[in-house]
Amino acid sequence: MDAAEFRRRGKEMVDLIADYLENIEQRPVYPDVEPGYLRSLIPEEAPEEPETYEDVVKDIERVIMPGVTHWHSPYFYAYFPTANSFPAMLADMLSGAIGCIGFSWAASPACTELETVMMDWLGKMLKLPEDFIAGTHGQGGGVIQGTASEATLVALLAARSRAVRMILASDPQRPETDITSKLVAYSSDQAHCSVERAGMIAGVRMKKIPTEQSDKYAVQGETLRRMIQEDKAAGLIPFYFCATLGTTPSCAFDHITELGPICNAEKIWMHIDAAYAGSSFICPEFRPLLNGIEVRNQPQIHTHTHTHTLQLPVKLSVNILVFTPIIICHWQIPLGRRFRSLKMWFVFRMYGLKGLQDYIRKHVELAKEFESLVRADQRFEISADVVLGLVCFRLKGSNEVNETLLKRINNGRKIHLVPCQLSGQFVLRFAVCARTTESRHIREAWRLITQLAEEVMQELPN
Amino acid sequence: MDAAEFRRRGKEMVDLIADYLENIEQRPVYPDVEPGYLRSLIPEEAPEEPETYEDVVKDIERVIMPGVTHWHSPYFYAYFPTANSFPAMLADMLSGAIGCIGFSWAASPACTELETVMMDWLGKMLKLPEDFIAGTHGQGGGVIQGTASEATLVALLAARSRAVRMILASDPQRPETDITSKLVAYSSDQAHCSVERAGMIAGVRMKKIPTEQSDKYAVQGETLRRMIQEDKAAGLIPFYFCATLGTTPSCAFDHITELGPICNAEKIWMHIDAAYAGSSFICPEFRPLLNGIEVRNQPQIHTHTHTHTLQLPVKLSVNILVFTPIIICHWQIPLGRRFRSLKMWFVFRMYGLKGLQDYIRKHVELAKEFESLVRADQRFEISADVVLGLVCFRLKGSNEVNETLLKRINNGRKIHLVPCQLSGQFVLRFAVCARTTESRHIREAWRLITQLAEEVMQELPN
Repeated sequence: MDAAEFRRRGKEMVDLIADYLENIEQRPVYPDVEPGYLRSLIPEEAPEEPETYEDVVKDIERVIMPGVTHWHSPYFYAYFPTANSFPAMLADMLSGAIGCIGFSWAASPACTELETVMMDWLGKMLKLPEDFIAGTHGQGGGVIQGTASEATLVALLAARSRAVRMILASDPQRPETDITSKLVAYSSDQAHCSVERAGMIAGVRMKKIPTEQSDKYAVQGETLRRMIQEDKAAGLIPFYFCATLGTTPSCAFDHITELGPICNAEKIWMHIDAAYAGSSFICPEFRPLLNGIEVRNQPQIHTHTHTHTLQLPVKLSVNILVFTPIIICHWQIPLGRRFRSLKMWFVFRMYGLKGLQDYIRKHVELAKEFESLVRADQRFEISADVVLGLVCFRLKGSNEVNETLLKRINNGRKIHLVPCQLSGQFVLRFAVCARTTESRHIREAWRLITQLAEEVMQELPN
Repeated sequence: MDAAEFRRRGKEMVDLIADYLENIEQRPVYPDVEPGYLRSLIPEEAPEEPETYEDVVKDIERVIMPGVTHWHSPYFYAYFPTANSFPAMLADMLSGAIGCIGFSWAASPACTELETVMMDWLGKMLKLPEDFIAGTHGQGGGVIQGTASEATLVALLAARSRAVRMILASDPQRPETDITSKLVAYSSDQAHCSVERAGMIAGVRMKKIPTEQSDKYAVQGETLRRMIQEDKAAGLIPFYFCATLGTTPSCAFDHITELGPICNAEKIWMHIDAAYAGSSFICPEFRPLLNGIEVRNQPQIHTHTHTHTLQLPVKLSVNILVFTPIIICHWQIPLGRRFRSLKMWFVFRMYGLKGLQDYIRKHVELAKEFESLVRADQRFEISADVVLGLVCFRLKGSNEVNETLLKRINNGRKIHLVPCQLSGQFVLRFAVCARTTESRHIREAWRLITQLAEEVMQELPN
């Protein structure tokens, strides 16, 4: 394919994409295929000779679309949003064409530099303290991580390295492996599984801090303090705590103002995982959820210039972005990186801060609308505070009846939800996800849910 | 921006991209900017109100392009290729529009399934042994890793886990941290820095195996065997060896046929890093470089189903792909993943196996042409065997004179090269990278190099 054909095919692809997104709600949001469905639809080997583009494009509908879960359908309420937008797609096209690998400044200066400034823009939108910003003289600054799981891991590795150095400074003869074997990290029992996984990768002990429904699933300072003291008494070295702002099961919030000072006093690295909720902090009304970020013990950062110094991962709803103040070059697991900041640049400018705030507020309003519908129905209950775009709810009744309801919902393929466990209860998660979700989709979803709930309840033995 | 505007802007972007790539050789391949150049060109904060798309697009030439190292210019001979093609860009547009996160089968079945089949296609193109293929009943299979550095790390983590389990099986009371502290991994002193880095991340000892110019920088079985014996005698536990097929400095090849049996006998996990050279193994004439892959000790794989079972990473020149037989779900560092296999699907079909072979052969031929030009000039010498698309060469003379030459070359910004160190010598690396590089570009590059060499040599004190 030469440039001339690319001009033609690229424009056809733009139309194909626009058609797909304009008509996405006509498609079943969740696919009706069995594992292994795709293999029989295509050859067992790559072709020897080139095929025509027409043949390839025809197969998108025949092979791919039947197996796609449509994350950008307004009827998609599962997991959390993976935001997408037209400006982001345009920027990504450009990023693909430039196709540089930004592993160093010289490898493509614009790639490193735009990212640094875009992370500053984001930091300012989030009203982060000044020392999180790179600026022209700053020691702060951030990088985009590919995923939230990588941000957690990189922070953990940085904390591990810092802890080893701190101990070696006062006890230079102690073997590093002896130190590592005594390290202990903490996270909430509500934390994402990638936190536990980070501990496994880094080869350190990771303890889960129990939380209670009565505390709104937030880690209690008293519990953290007690666990730290017990572990220290047992000869362990507490070194890392992963707080969560917006947990995956129920969007619960740890209180940084309470937990930060404990970590500072104990010289524990506090990492804040705000992979879902972080983007909302660009709205003044949600920014208080991030209060406590200023308790960061600044001198600790600046004396550990040979470690990673990640602090705050934030996934913005317009794309996966993770904010982290950084001092040196080893800020990520992979060495190579795409020119991802172009997406931020396009999106920030085409939406403007106000547009992004409106985007987030609309999702929160839609969640509140869904919450009202649930609350108005005596058969249902709300299982956790609705703070942002996630509503946790269930039928008053057994786990079994709720499992059956969810199965019916997903089998219908009109809307898609996933469950969570809260205090032993099987709970349905309704997350407002798509850019195009409107009030009518919410009401339609609720109509479907109540209709299926009625069916399920009628089938119950009296 | 709505779908209607995206149709218009998307088509403009397609033309912008085609224009960029058609005229890329008119641009200086390496940018003339100082660190920090970009910050002053754009505002310090994101705009409050949306900007127009025209304003954003205008800034591509004003802000971005002056700072871009043009990896797809036919005058780019630095690092290694990061391949790109029009079919790959079209597929990536589609991947962006579908915008699913494939962390599980249900999260988008087509994403997982196409990847499995595409990795089989690749495995068959590479003539891998049957047990590397997933097929319908197979225990093999591969996944795409984001980067080669991640593949190395994931393999190392899998090997660590396997080693710990093997030892615990015979000595269940031994503390895991004691085992980990005794583990030792090996790689060539020619291995990429990401291998050493993987050791740091995984918290295990990593030893470099010295290589010699007289052995063409290949790890010698005798050296590996001796180091293993010495380490075992010292109470350490050898568990991982990273072989390289196509090293970064000089595209040297370790001999798997010799090293594999040593690793098998010692129950050491052998990981093969073929990030650059791997794609060439789809050509029958280069496939012998991969001989020895069949020595894999099959039972070891199948009895360690709870570990990662990565074996062979291959970066294909049409895109970053890494091949790895996989048994379970935790095959990568990040949890989320894009629909990357669409790119393989489009590229394999639009090129066909023959087209891809031609692509690789052309690059090798161009490198051979450059090698002939160097060899015909008495002032220069070739520093390592030219096997694929990389030519290592230098002026006969001091390191200083070669450093000066390289500086002149890169300051000219007409062509771009990076150096390497081979046996203490400063060597220039000439890597054929771009899809559009032709014989005339090679000759033009050589003309420039000899012209600058003449200048540099004339300035030398007599």
